Amino acid sequence: MDKAHSGDDVVLSLDEVFALSKSVLVAAGLTEAQAAPLARVLTEGQRDECHSHGLFRLPGCVQTIHHPRFNRDAVPDVTDTTAAVTRVDAQFGFSLPALEAAMPRFVEKARAIGISVLAINNCFHITALWPEIERLTAQGLVAIAMTPSHSWVAPAGGTKGALGTNPIAFGWPREGQEPYVFDFATSAIARGDISLHKMAGKPLKEGWAFDADGNPTTSAAAALEGAMLTFGGHKGSALSTMIELLAGPLIADMTSLESMDFDDGLKAAPCHGEILIAFDPAILGGGSRDNQASSERLFSAIADQGARLPSTRRYAARARSLANGVHVPRHLYEQIMALPRAG
Amino acid sequence: MDKAHSGDDVVLSLDEVFALSKSVLVAAGLTEAQAAPLARVLTEGQRDECHSHGLFRLPGCVQTIHHPRFNRDAVPDVTDTTAAVTRVDAQFGFSLPALEAAMPRFVEKARAIGISVLAINNCFHITALWPEIERLTAQGLVAIAMTPSHSWVAPAGGTKGALGTNPIAFGWPREGQEPYVFDFATSAIARGDISLHKMAGKPLKEGWAFDADGNPTTSAAAALEGAMLTFGGHKGSALSTMIELLAGPLIADMTSLESMDFDDGLKAAPCHGEILIAFDPAILGGGSRDNQASSERLFSAIADQGARLPSTRRYAARARSLANGVHVPRHLYEQIMALPRAG
Repeated sequence: MDKAHSGDDVVLSLDEVFALSKSVLVAAGLTEAQAAPLARVLTEGQRDECHSHGLFRLPGCVQTIHHPRFNRDAVPDVTDTTAAVTRVDAQFGFSLPALEAAMPRFVEKARAIGISVLAINNCFHITALWPEIERLTAQGLVAIAMTPSHSWVAPAGGTKGALGTNPIAFGWPREGQEPYVFDFATSAIARGDISLHKMAGKPLKEGWAFDADGNPTTSAAAALEGAMLTFGGHKGSALSTMIELLAGPLIADMTSLESMDFDDGLKAAPCHGEILIAFDPAILGGGSRDNQASSERLFSAIADQGARLPSTRRYAARARSLANGVHVPRHLYEQIMALPRAG
Repeated sequence: MDKAHSGDDVVLSLDEVFALSKSVLVAAGLTEAQAAPLARVLTEGQRDECHSHGLFRLPGCVQTIHHPRFNRDAVPDVTDTTAAVTRVDAQFGFSLPALEAAMPRFVEKARAIGISVLAINNCFHITALWPEIERLTAQGLVAIAMTPSHSWVAPAGGTKGALGTNPIAFGWPREGQEPYVFDFATSAIARGDISLHKMAGKPLKEGWAFDADGNPTTSAAAALEGAMLTFGGHKGSALSTMIELLAGPLIADMTSLESMDFDDGLKAAPCHGEILIAFDPAILGGGSRDNQASSERLFSAIADQGARLPSTRRYAARARSLANGVHVPRHLYEQIMALPRAG
């Protein structure tokens, strides 16, 4: 980043990002135990330059904490459903404390029998999925995570919201290097990125969104009142529907339509469920074959022709941030400094 | 179908399609036990008017049976790996007899602990995935199936094959009606559909394929010698990579690159693995909420705005075929009647 540009930015260390985030969350009413995991993930977002999931999201977290249905005193309730299934009721707090409470049992089950499911219920979900995926790949597990959101997304062939932005994230551990990880919204664009377009006064690409009357639009403001399309036409639309079903009704939680109703127009973070699936390659592979040689050959075949593996930019940003701290746009920094802070 | 058109077609009953398919497969060297499940699935493809997976595929099955590495005497070997995981070695026969051998244990485990994985190894795979998915939804289970194929597909940003067409199929049981099912190749177009374009002399859409030199092409013949793109840009490419990893190295089987090497230029059906995951909603939902009401509301929100649920056309074709039999193009019928038949 050149000096002219960093002149508009405030440079913070990762510790400063974490401390600032946590103090804002605690001042908004979260307990230390609830604030810490959320602040850590916001810091990871800023560190990896996933700007829509970094400090940019902190004001939205505060807004969600003030949602009348948000439970500031939530204590996650973990249930050992079966040898393969763990359920955790987030009690209408954020997803992350619930995930942390259930993580040891979730991992232990995957290690014991090769596959394990974690259903998080009744959680407000505001964070990216890749930080959760990386916690699992760091333990040698292959992992998938999915959530619904709010019904901002039209199915292929329609113009009205029925589906959520429904992210899916996946991770594959690699020996001696960063894991193969992707995390994408199944909408044509992430909701947070539409907000960033609106803030920057940039138009959306054609074919991404409809206005409230169902007409195609490139206005980010109009799209926020209307509906987005999914990525990938009818295939992306089907995949998004699968995510609705697996992370919603399958685990007895809300679809994006139901979560939107639950929000009751308050525009807080979506409250719904999340499903995570972990696989232990040591068990599923039967130990009979070197799965790393096979996957590394695939990654080389992709990267050697100049195609990018997902997360490459994120890992490069991480290295920069760990060395030099993060750059926060001044207007965002000032917006955050204007929020109440604890301590 | 009007009379002029049916004049070019041969009309067969489903029993006739099954008997014809089985007699060709047995004459090619398959045992009755191996031929029956394959003939049943080809009949289902023809019945549902999935033409690239119906009788059209029978000559390819025969070609595969003649592959020097194909095992006509394969007896699937089922292993109870853990309470959640079943592995079945197809012994280099077709996938379907292996699936049938392992199905009871696979289903029983999902019912017992909520989720279950079936890894099929060392199978020649030539059939659609939705017939397998429908066997699971018929038992009240939610199901996912994935396979690699041959490395005909370029990653986003590349021009050379590294990924397979990598289909993913999903099913959700619906009370009192046909299940929600999708089954799609993660390539921009299915390999079988490119062959159909070539046979019909129809050009491909722009942006679907590269020729052998890595230049964009709309020629189906050139695409068959070059590489396809995935659907959905970098997101579709990431998803295809996930399918490679889950249905390949995770279960200690071949990637599409390795399967292409194994084929050694013979252009038989791909030999590799398949992963199926089954979920029991009765366990994962904790019985606490009516998941059907929630999913039906979602399906209505999609269909009521005129968007199509996947498989709708297939179910309509099924009803027609069950009532009136199937229409087989005369040139295809004559091609099949020219193959050796048993009995």
